[in-house]
Amino acid sequence: MEREITAFAPASVSNVACGFDIMGFALDQPGDTVTARVVKSPGVRIKSITGSTSSLPTDPALNTAAAPVAALLKHCKATLGVELEISKGVPVGGGIGSSAASAVAAAVACNALLELDLTKEELLPFAIEGEKIASDAIHVDNLSPSLWGGFILVRGYKPIDIVQIEAPRDIWCTVIHPHIEIQTKASRKLLPKSVPLADLVTQTGNAAGLVAGLLKQDYALIGRSLHDVVAEPARSHMIPGFANMKAAALDAGALGCSISGSGPSVFALSITKETADKVGASMRKVLDSLACPNTVFVSRICSNGARIIS
Amino acid sequence: MEREITAFAPASVSNVACGFDIMGFALDQPGDTVTARVVKSPGVRIKSITGSTSSLPTDPALNTAAAPVAALLKHCKATLGVELEISKGVPVGGGIGSSAASAVAAAVACNALLELDLTKEELLPFAIEGEKIASDAIHVDNLSPSLWGGFILVRGYKPIDIVQIEAPRDIWCTVIHPHIEIQTKASRKLLPKSVPLADLVTQTGNAAGLVAGLLKQDYALIGRSLHDVVAEPARSHMIPGFANMKAAALDAGALGCSISGSGPSVFALSITKETADKVGASMRKVLDSLACPNTVFVSRICSNGARIIS
Repeated sequence: MEREITAFAPASVSNVACGFDIMGFALDQPGDTVTARVVKSPGVRIKSITGSTSSLPTDPALNTAAAPVAALLKHCKATLGVELEISKGVPVGGGIGSSAASAVAAAVACNALLELDLTKEELLPFAIEGEKIASDAIHVDNLSPSLWGGFILVRGYKPIDIVQIEAPRDIWCTVIHPHIEIQTKASRKLLPKSVPLADLVTQTGNAAGLVAGLLKQDYALIGRSLHDVVAEPARSHMIPGFANMKAAALDAGALGCSISGSGPSVFALSITKETADKVGASMRKVLDSLACPNTVFVSRICSNGARIIS
Repeated sequence: MEREITAFAPASVSNVACGFDIMGFALDQPGDTVTARVVKSPGVRIKSITGSTSSLPTDPALNTAAAPVAALLKHCKATLGVELEISKGVPVGGGIGSSAASAVAAAVACNALLELDLTKEELLPFAIEGEKIASDAIHVDNLSPSLWGGFILVRGYKPIDIVQIEAPRDIWCTVIHPHIEIQTKASRKLLPKSVPLADLVTQTGNAAGLVAGLLKQDYALIGRSLHDVVAEPARSHMIPGFANMKAAALDAGALGCSISGSGPSVFALSITKETADKVGASMRKVLDSLACPNTVFVSRICSNGARIIS
């Protein structure tokens, strides 16, 4: 048996300002590509990791792509093994779902390779095994957009309840990635343990408003809802030039701007590609003035999520 | 000049489980009726209050219907006065927007009487003057559904941002009103000053889920979202038989069940009138067994809100 399958899974923006731990959307690009190949020796082996500027562990027990595959092999009581080649398009530790993209691409590739025929709902728990390595708690607000594509609401965690929110196709996302690394685990330590009741009211109003704005295609409402009174105030000091980048993005016409995931990337939503490009240039100017190397991504919200590409 | 205008404003359910301080919907019935009449002596005078089982103050400075009228008279620098006849259909202190219905009906009647031609947006601040008398803080989650009708999301308070959420027409609401009185001010004192971060995640997920469920007409999602981890746990002990009523409502087929506003009324949502009636009978059985007098209302979500009726 000599077979291989390659799958792609997109980067994703989670939290989305007002949707701390409950919202995320997929980007058209960048994304991770994972090739899974059947090998005779049992278990998971990582043959190569390319494309990443940061070193990632090739020990399968510590790698977010290997863990879902190990769980899938165990699930189907496989006697054979799987070898992975991981091509990282998503910056590691950038806050746009790097670990989720690898975990999802690996799960999707392995599902096809082993002809398991699991649905995306059924694959999610295996992908979670990968995300567990990156974060202390189970979060699926990057995993689920990367898997399904589109804009996702995680309505609840007990049990996990994924709701697809049809976002307008003409919304564009700008992501700027300052080349500093923030570990999800470290960033979570900055969060408040509790929030004042008034902030809960503000956050629930904005979260509900964002979903209403997306489903009603009300761009002004989307913009008015893109505020975070919980995580952004606790984390933004870790991101160089955050306040100036946000002001620049809004000045350039963005509907809203906040931290992507646990940072350091910052995202902004705009109505046209032209505006999204302008927003990117404006935010970059701020980081350039601080001599902070950075990458800008401009993308639609990806509508189809993870997929087999060969 | 001898003119009079009569307006009706419906009762409303606020909080709606997961939408603490940010959501509300209007009922078809019951409602309050206010007749406003021009009189020569300046200021506001309350001629009569009928229909209420509880005594309400006729002192204009303490009456929720008089305050909006006083503010409107001041606004238009009127030299004449207005006399009010208030017919209470909404139980006082019942938690289904009694003060809001009176304030809104009075504001709508006076707007027409004085030919001010204010829009509902413009009338809202005057109606708020009435609600201020009933509550320490400004809340518009009863006022706005009573004024506009339908299901309302108060996206934010600074400034007030009202979003109409198109609810499915086949949703029915059951309200059971135990004949005990809970003052809004007292009930607010029971609320926690802060909430754990995990509860914020749960509450925002449910609030966003409810809005998604309504707009997508996904009844199962509406049901899964109707949970309150903030106010209900702090307040439900004040309501006789609450846990049993809730269990009975869900057993009878309700999508969800929680406290209406600050209580003591309890509401449940169902897909058909038949189920809503059955839910009402089941909840009533619980209160009857506790020898607690009660009233049950079964109503659609009112789609048109406050209106001139003569």
